[in-house]
Amino acid sequence: MQILNITTDAPRQWLDITEHVAQALRATPIQEGACLVFSPHTTASVVVGEHWDPDVVRDLLAFLADRVPNTWPAWRHQEGNSAAHLLQALFGSSATVPVHQGALALGRWQGIFLAEWDGPRTRQVYVQCLPA
Amino acid sequence: MQILNITTDAPRQWLDITEHVAQALRATPIQEGACLVFSPHTTASVVVGEHWDPDVVRDLLAFLADRVPNTWPAWRHQEGNSAAHLLQALFGSSATVPVHQGALALGRWQGIFLAEWDGPRTRQVYVQCLPA
Amino acid sequence: MQILNITTDAPRQWLDITEHVAQALRATPIQEGACLVFSPHTTASVVVGEHWDPDVVRDLLAFLADRVPNTWPAWRHQEGNSAAHLLQALFGSSATVPVHQGALALGRWQGIFLAEWDGPRTRQVYVQCLPA
Repeated sequence: MQILNITTDAPRQWLDITEHVAQALRATPIQEGACLVFSPHTTASVVVGEHWDPDVVRDLLAFLADRVPNTWPAWRHQEGNSAAHLLQALFGSSATVPVHQGALALGRWQGIFLAEWDGPRTRQVYVQCLPA
Repeated sequence: MQILNITTDAPRQWLDITEHVAQALRATPIQEGACLVFSPHTTASVVVGEHWDPDVVRDLLAFLADRVPNTWPAWRHQEGNSAAHLLQALFGSSATVPVHQGALALGRWQGIFLAEWDGPRTRQVYVQCLPA
Repeated sequence: MQILNITTDAPRQWLDITEHVAQALRATPIQEGACLVFSPHTTASVVVGEHWDPDVVRDLLAFLADRVPNTWPAWRHQEGNSAAHLLQALFGSSATVPVHQGALALGRWQGIFLAEWDGPRTRQVYVQCLPA
């Protein structure tokens, strides 16, 4: 298992980590299989999404800021980041990407993101590649 | 890795691809393990859900049409399909299904769907099965 | 593949099953790889989330009760649990957790939950661990 170290610099932010994951894969002998990309944090997700036009992530975060605001009257969790925990669970802790002919089998517009929901923070991402 | 070719025929639609995935699994020698079913698209998801009563998917799409409409004033992405990108990220790009005794270990009411969020289009689905 | 038997006791409830999954992993010889934890039900999910402060899950369920209520006028599914099917699809049917040095590579605050959306019921969870 390999560990990536990532630093985020905004409260909610998606950072493109595709190249880091591709490099982790190249450090293994796997030609066919899958890479599990996992966030060990409870306020950050790993998501596969569009990474060509930055407006896509911008629009997504704008909508979520409206629909899942950082405060809500009925919340009790004392750290005040219940929204971040909810978004982590909704978007999940991991993405699994197929490996074909030694490379990540992503579509043309796809990238792998660390989704920060409660930053800025220093984050880790675990990469565990599995053979077919 | 095997590639399925799927054609959707509506803007938002869930297509049951369970039999296609089962067939891809049977083309491998795997008896115990898991199948990764992956969408290489940024406006389509792969989801495990109820495939017995078509009203379940209908109700789900009706609710999403209300809560995640195709247009929203603050969106800037020029292709105009920000909602589809958001739904892709929310529902994820892949499903992983256990394989037991050479078959997909799905529950009685479960099926595997290609979730189209911006159709109609021609789509691909990658199937990569991994041994336990 | 191993099967866990879990009993839930509320309509919507997250049950911490981390120890059950860790035990299933220990019954395998896998030192490096991943565990797929899968719900074969269409109204229950498996989710990785915060399991330290119970207020986190409480806040999450309170928000979802407001935003995805159990009834909605346009729903037609005769069993009346369309909300549960929607939540199952949104949160997914499975979680995949890396295995490192023979243990689940979870973060300090992370646990694995069976998310019940239409309880109380008796549930199964499939655990299939894969070697790296």
